[in-house]
Amino acid sequence: MADSNTIRLRVFSLNCWGVRYLSKHCLQRYAMIGELLSREEHDIVLLQEVWSEKDFLCLKRKLSSTHPHSHYFKSGVIGSGLATFSRHRIHDAFLYRYSLNGYPYMAQHGDWFGGKAVGMVILNIGRLTAHVYVTHLHAEYCREKDSYLPHRVVQAWELQQFIRHTSSGADLVILAGDLNLHPQDLGNRLLRTYTGLRDSYTETAKFDGCEDGITLIADNPFINPKELCPFEKGIRIDYILYKGSGRVSIQCESLSTTKGSVPDHPFPYSDHEALSAELQLQTLTQQAGGDETRGMQDCAAGKLAELVDIVTEARTEVKVGLYCAERMRYTAARTGVMGLALLLLELAIAAVPWLALGADQPFPQASFYLLGVLCFAILITTFLLYIFYTMEVKALQGAEDQMRLAVGSLQERLRGFPLAQPLNPLRRPPDGQDPCPLEPEE
Amino acid sequence: MADSNTIRLRVFSLNCWGVRYLSKHCLQRYAMIGELLSREEHDIVLLQEVWSEKDFLCLKRKLSSTHPHSHYFKSGVIGSGLATFSRHRIHDAFLYRYSLNGYPYMAQHGDWFGGKAVGMVILNIGRLTAHVYVTHLHAEYCREKDSYLPHRVVQAWELQQFIRHTSSGADLVILAGDLNLHPQDLGNRLLRTYTGLRDSYTETAKFDGCEDGITLIADNPFINPKELCPFEKGIRIDYILYKGSGRVSIQCESLSTTKGSVPDHPFPYSDHEALSAELQLQTLTQQAGGDETRGMQDCAAGKLAELVDIVTEARTEVKVGLYCAERMRYTAARTGVMGLALLLLELAIAAVPWLALGADQPFPQASFYLLGVLCFAILITTFLLYIFYTMEVKALQGAEDQMRLAVGSLQERLRGFPLAQPLNPLRRPPDGQDPCPLEPEE
Repeated sequence: MADSNTIRLRVFSLNCWGVRYLSKHCLQRYAMIGELLSREEHDIVLLQEVWSEKDFLCLKRKLSSTHPHSHYFKSGVIGSGLATFSRHRIHDAFLYRYSLNGYPYMAQHGDWFGGKAVGMVILNIGRLTAHVYVTHLHAEYCREKDSYLPHRVVQAWELQQFIRHTSSGADLVILAGDLNLHPQDLGNRLLRTYTGLRDSYTETAKFDGCEDGITLIADNPFINPKELCPFEKGIRIDYILYKGSGRVSIQCESLSTTKGSVPDHPFPYSDHEALSAELQLQTLTQQAGGDETRGMQDCAAGKLAELVDIVTEARTEVKVGLYCAERMRYTAARTGVMGLALLLLELAIAAVPWLALGADQPFPQASFYLLGVLCFAILITTFLLYIFYTMEVKALQGAEDQMRLAVGSLQERLRGFPLAQPLNPLRRPPDGQDPCPLEPEE
Repeated sequence: MADSNTIRLRVFSLNCWGVRYLSKHCLQRYAMIGELLSREEHDIVLLQEVWSEKDFLCLKRKLSSTHPHSHYFKSGVIGSGLATFSRHRIHDAFLYRYSLNGYPYMAQHGDWFGGKAVGMVILNIGRLTAHVYVTHLHAEYCREKDSYLPHRVVQAWELQQFIRHTSSGADLVILAGDLNLHPQDLGNRLLRTYTGLRDSYTETAKFDGCEDGITLIADNPFINPKELCPFEKGIRIDYILYKGSGRVSIQCESLSTTKGSVPDHPFPYSDHEALSAELQLQTLTQQAGGDETRGMQDCAAGKLAELVDIVTEARTEVKVGLYCAERMRYTAARTGVMGLALLLLELAIAAVPWLALGADQPFPQASFYLLGVLCFAILITTFLLYIFYTMEVKALQGAEDQMRLAVGSLQERLRGFPLAQPLNPLRRPPDGQDPCPLEPEE
């Protein structure tokens, strides 16, 4: 590392809670966020829940001198809510929409309409190529009985796949966002173990922020502490993750979070706390140590076995979701058939006096039409639900198939590890950023 | 290339036209396809329009000894229709769903229900890592007035993005499928120029098949020649594309297509012709010539300028689509408002006798209910259409934003080219598979 040079990179992440007309003090908070960003001049700013493009454009104008490059990811009905600002030129942008994201009829949760996705921008920092990802996974509304768990697991699975497959050419990888996952949640372990991404909170040399790094805190005035129960103080669900490559070694120098209030302002920036990480990039001479050696260690047999366990756990969760989705589809089909039977019965009864001329109409006309409308409503609703659940079933089956394939491949690699030599280096580590590529030992 | 060794790879692609109960002789044709595949033993088989999973499982059983590895890509309501069989182990699979794919109310075309996507499998061929892609883009039903053109252009854009971003770690890249694009169509030029993929038909040393390589031929008994008009003999819309890397050079030794009939059988395999390519892979010594030199040439200023033109053309097409989608959304909103106004008017008229007690009810009851149902139907339909068009608008805007970013980045690179030195090599060409990465000159 004698001839390496050092770059400092400051990364910012915040879930802005930017639902116009619904989120409290939305415009004032955006103004505060704009002030903060133009003052702090982070290299990369990754925002979530910027639901209105107008707010993005407003921020863009405000940050035009400090952050000349930006991208707003559009998706779904009201957008993905993902936005990025950068002091370094953005050369390419790509969006991956998760195949599952809640249910359209759960309008009170609203996640489905958000078109949740992971956005990637590629930017050049000096001579280095950085692949920067921003995402926002489905919220957890009830930890005890979390009906969205399979959806979130599939999202975490697709997120790790997207990062793993699109980051091979990167010198460094950064992922930030509201993962809606606790540090040891299945999705989080899956993501970190498979991609080799490191958590800035656990890796940082210096930390200044809320206790235990929590980012959804009970002291935040926009939060109902009851909703955090049983976590009295709060939970850590927002992250800045990173990894280097054979060409770059990364250290997290410091990490800070906001603490639920902003000096000289009556309320905080958002219902989430903002994260701000300072990373130190050290370009390595070819074949040098650092992340590369770490990559080899990561891929030791123990790590592989852990990964097999995690993917198997995820597969079980997806299977549970699949069982529920199939049951719901069956219920929709059965209700639809009952609606159809009712409609036919009604028509049959109404047809009696028409066939036997002169007999009295047994139905009052108003009831006849109302019942007809009800039957039609049932038929249409159950048809739409059947279509929706079929798509859910397909998506869950697809994820499960991929997981089965991955477990098989990992187990095959594991068999290639001699017991006495757990740190057997992988083929081509120096120019592969992924410490655990799905390639067998040779 | 003195110490290189050679591998031969046989790739097969077919659009199976496998709509159960609707496609003619579906089961018999699958039986024929199964026979062909188990006899020919291609290394990689890439199938499209395998709509029923049962048919896939039936093929899988039949090919269990010749092609022990397979993957079926699930997506949308009735699946993506994409399937792959391989003699080499599949280590990983990933699916990208296109953001646009026709309209749900165009049920007679049915594309929307198909969940069109691009599937990727990663497999190891000897010591080489192959990234193999299979896809099927939206059909073209009327070339003169093609309302789906913006959707197909966006699909081609997303396809090239997906391939470009996920193939950095690959030694070789193969894409096969029914692109529904003529050889010089915008989407095809966009795909080939941006990714550097080469067309096996134009590159092959030997060709045996239909004239001009057409794959949808007028002689096929399942095809109505009138639908091919003005292309009397047929069109070429199915492809096998490939590219090597700094480690592998690829040559297409031979390409063949079926010719509309199968000896000893009364009908052909499908309404499309099957493609069969024989590729010769030559592993290169590090820093050797071949594809790598080609990569540099490809990235010459002329190529970049061509790419800028193509992306600009694509952007124009997307803008046209955006204009149409916005107009349709406006029409849906206006119709919805009219439906609401009619409903309110009806309620007001009905309320008159209720308010002025004793006055006659001006409405016959039956008409009252029927009109009410009509108004509700208009409201629900226009609401759903509004939601759908909003998603279409967002997706088109998203693609257009990405294209704008790409054009800017390409133009910046173009400015870096001195006029006297058009073959200025790019940074890091030896280990980058993408001959045109979006990185500026340094």
